[in-house]
Amino acid sequence: MTWLGQTSVGGSTVDRIMVQGLDLSGDVIGRANLGDMLFLLVARRLPTAEESAVFNGVLVSIADHGITPNALAARLTYTGAPEALQGAVAAGLLGIGGVILGVAEETARLVQDGVARATDLDDASLDDVAESLLDDLPAGARLPGLGHPIHKGEDPRIGVLFTLARRHGQYGPHCRLFERFGEQANKRLGLQLPLNAAGAAGAILSDLGFSWKIVRGILLVARAAGMVGHLAEEQERPIGWAVWREIEGRVPYGPPDHPDA
Amino acid sequence: MTWLGQTSVGGSTVDRIMVQGLDLSGDVIGRANLGDMLFLLVARRLPTAEESAVFNGVLVSIADHGITPNALAARLTYTGAPEALQGAVAAGLLGIGGVILGVAEETARLVQDGVARATDLDDASLDDVAESLLDDLPAGARLPGLGHPIHKGEDPRIGVLFTLARRHGQYGPHCRLFERFGEQANKRLGLQLPLNAAGAAGAILSDLGFSWKIVRGILLVARAAGMVGHLAEEQERPIGWAVWREIEGRVPYGPPDHPDA
Amino acid sequence: MTWLGQTSVGGSTVDRIMVQGLDLSGDVIGRANLGDMLFLLVARRLPTAEESAVFNGVLVSIADHGITPNALAARLTYTGAPEALQGAVAAGLLGIGGVILGVAEETARLVQDGVARATDLDDASLDDVAESLLDDLPAGARLPGLGHPIHKGEDPRIGVLFTLARRHGQYGPHCRLFERFGEQANKRLGLQLPLNAAGAAGAILSDLGFSWKIVRGILLVARAAGMVGHLAEEQERPIGWAVWREIEGRVPYGPPDHPDA
Amino acid sequence: MTWLGQTSVGGSTVDRIMVQGLDLSGDVIGRANLGDMLFLLVARRLPTAEESAVFNGVLVSIADHGITPNALAARLTYTGAPEALQGAVAAGLLGIGGVILGVAEETARLVQDGVARATDLDDASLDDVAESLLDDLPAGARLPGLGHPIHKGEDPRIGVLFTLARRHGQYGPHCRLFERFGEQANKRLGLQLPLNAAGAAGAILSDLGFSWKIVRGILLVARAAGMVGHLAEEQERPIGWAVWREIEGRVPYGPPDHPDA
Repeated sequence: MTWLGQTSVGGSTVDRIMVQGLDLSGDVIGRANLGDMLFLLVARRLPTAEESAVFNGVLVSIADHGITPNALAARLTYTGAPEALQGAVAAGLLGIGGVILGVAEETARLVQDGVARATDLDDASLDDVAESLLDDLPAGARLPGLGHPIHKGEDPRIGVLFTLARRHGQYGPHCRLFERFGEQANKRLGLQLPLNAAGAAGAILSDLGFSWKIVRGILLVARAAGMVGHLAEEQERPIGWAVWREIEGRVPYGPPDHPDA
Repeated sequence: MTWLGQTSVGGSTVDRIMVQGLDLSGDVIGRANLGDMLFLLVARRLPTAEESAVFNGVLVSIADHGITPNALAARLTYTGAPEALQGAVAAGLLGIGGVILGVAEETARLVQDGVARATDLDDASLDDVAESLLDDLPAGARLPGLGHPIHKGEDPRIGVLFTLARRHGQYGPHCRLFERFGEQANKRLGLQLPLNAAGAAGAILSDLGFSWKIVRGILLVARAAGMVGHLAEEQERPIGWAVWREIEGRVPYGPPDHPDA
Repeated sequence: MTWLGQTSVGGSTVDRIMVQGLDLSGDVIGRANLGDMLFLLVARRLPTAEESAVFNGVLVSIADHGITPNALAARLTYTGAPEALQGAVAAGLLGIGGVILGVAEETARLVQDGVARATDLDDASLDDVAESLLDDLPAGARLPGLGHPIHKGEDPRIGVLFTLARRHGQYGPHCRLFERFGEQANKRLGLQLPLNAAGAAGAILSDLGFSWKIVRGILLVARAAGMVGHLAEEQERPIGWAVWREIEGRVPYGPPDHPDA
Repeated sequence: MTWLGQTSVGGSTVDRIMVQGLDLSGDVIGRANLGDMLFLLVARRLPTAEESAVFNGVLVSIADHGITPNALAARLTYTGAPEALQGAVAAGLLGIGGVILGVAEETARLVQDGVARATDLDDASLDDVAESLLDDLPAGARLPGLGHPIHKGEDPRIGVLFTLARRHGQYGPHCRLFERFGEQANKRLGLQLPLNAAGAAGAILSDLGFSWKIVRGILLVARAAGMVGHLAEEQERPIGWAVWREIEGRVPYGPPDHPDA
């Protein structure tokens, strides 16, 4: 029998379950929290205590945003199929894409690209990189990690996240570059856009060693927690039908502009 | 403007983000791990340290199962749409239903039903309840929480989970009823079916105070971590196309038995 | 190489594509419409012209319902991930479950069960079966196929669907039993509940020979068309953000009833 | 009450259901097939008989491809959650993205871009446009609509699709440009890549007047039919567990290359 590949994610024998080289029962349960387990599954090793604190902080910061379009999609899906909770959670995650939370992936990609092209990691070099990243952005492009529709002044999570990263020795060149990029972008454009938490998440996950390619996946796990919070509330105090009736009444039917000939 | 409902899950003002009555930046980030955050979102309060240890232990125990049908669905979905990681995670969660992991929900429902009908919580009363639960099961019905396709002897996670619950004072009547139910079921049927970890998860989550209705949701968050682990591996060492070619070759096309008339 | 199974759904060789025993290019393209293709894929033969007319009529009748919870879920998902249209369509389908459109499956199951237990298919026998189906329904259970939240008098699709089925010789015992079941249910309960179109769809699909187990699947294809109609409109005249802002404002945040101790 | 928008997709009153300006019961059921309904929902008018023939031909050609990664994802999802058919269909659609079927969207975009920049629609002008489209493609980029992993010679659907379009007067500048683009691409690269059916679908849908932005959506409806065909077969002759066991055995667990330090 030829093999099609190999996996280190997990495997079982009659009396043992392995995950990324560790014995699940002996080495992981009771020692790792859910964030650590996600770290293990993706990075293929458990985090240090310092990494764990910062990684879990990022996950917690991103888990919920109240009544978002995604939370509404999850709740409206639950309304139609309450017996299939997995469908409602899935529907809530499917809107985590280019527009919503995509900024974390974009920022991670930007700062990973930037740090990779930096000749040195001192302040001056990172400033040069920030300049060149700005030069490379197409005119009118969205600035990754800058601005927020609600938190116009400062995103309330930014300070605590960077402080957490610093306190645990995980504030590295990607975070530094992200802050410099924001500063220079504002200077160049004459704006005062705050850094946003999704961008900070992307930068911190980069300093923790995660490729930008999996950043969206990590945030999806955190958001799954948020979705389940909304669905638990929907089970006890449903708003789905009320939301639907309200919107149905406010998006009236009218014939198309280009009628049938 | 009339309100359609209210939410305690989360909400934002210009300078503050609230989640279940707590200030996200001040009270939660840096203090809670991802499992604690899920607990907060669903139970509407942070767990105690004891509850956190047990809850995270359950989540970790359920997060991954290696190459499951769900992991394959996630990887095959990634093969076709690698630019939309959220779709692959969602596809992986959609198969967490009645058959796979449904046993945790069923066990939680069983033991919550049982404890609710117990007149007392001493051993004799729980034995009576276990008998009556067995009596109520339709003939030939699957026994919730018993048996495992691979771990025929003892599920390697059971001991560590119950020990963890006991050590942290979270081993309560639902767990006790579950063990008694298993014992009596085996006695009645002349079998030696081990308790399985999904069933234990359902019982422990019941002792932690969660309704059986949201148990599936809690496990979905844990499994989301597993899916992202598989997708991170698929990004670096893909098996999707190889799996597809292999299966395509081994499920050949043949005309239907009932041909076109 | 051992086989894992066989499929008649479809298969390709270098110069030919087969589907359920037919050559796709030679026998199907240009001869079958999309509804016929769905019939072929599920029933493993092309429909007759009579069956095609009725089957397509059912599909058309169920394809859209305006601004439903599902359509909203699809649109809100598109808002967050416009680059992944497949995710928005999927989100829209995930709420087609027990509550929404589940009635078609339930009705199909009811009348298939009924016709199977009928000793004869004359009117008197079907009346007896209708009585016994009503007897078997748990007290207070939803009556499959009866009643509609908007169309209190008569569902505007019922007449045209049954007329279509009759005209094409596809109005059989399942439709007859469904009408008798509705009549007797109303008589017994002293109500005037109209038959609904989802129920009629279930009955007609039963007369066309489809198992109740696949009825939901057939309707999902029709609804996928509806979802794509909504998403095409969302691309040109988006309402997603406006809906979200409106609802966010009308479901305010408030702390939970059970505060953190 | 302020409006949030308006929809022409559909709407209901007590005794009437409207869809894109038509009365569903009076004007559409019994007159339109499922493909026509999709055309109506997206184009906001019913197709002519000629358009209907070609549009349905395209949908039929794309509906199924046998045991694809998507069909496997759908079947494996059904294995875990057979009670939620909508989840299995959704899982099957989620892998219709950039890699699988994305070529139809890309080809539609290419030829719509090309026809828009053509100064005239005669052969010479279209040749010029094809040249300039080729010039604009980044070096090494995939050629939209060319090549097929199985049908190395000629895709068996291409001839029948173009013949159908020609016969019904729907073979227009987008199809012509697509054929010229293919010819010139092969000449320039010294290859003999055949046009593929997904590309032809994109070109024909363009000549039918659909924006490239909704092409993926249209194909998703067709593919939903294919998914339901696979799931109907999975209900009767399941392969899910066998596929899983086979793959699990052939993708063995091994510890990660970068072990826990």
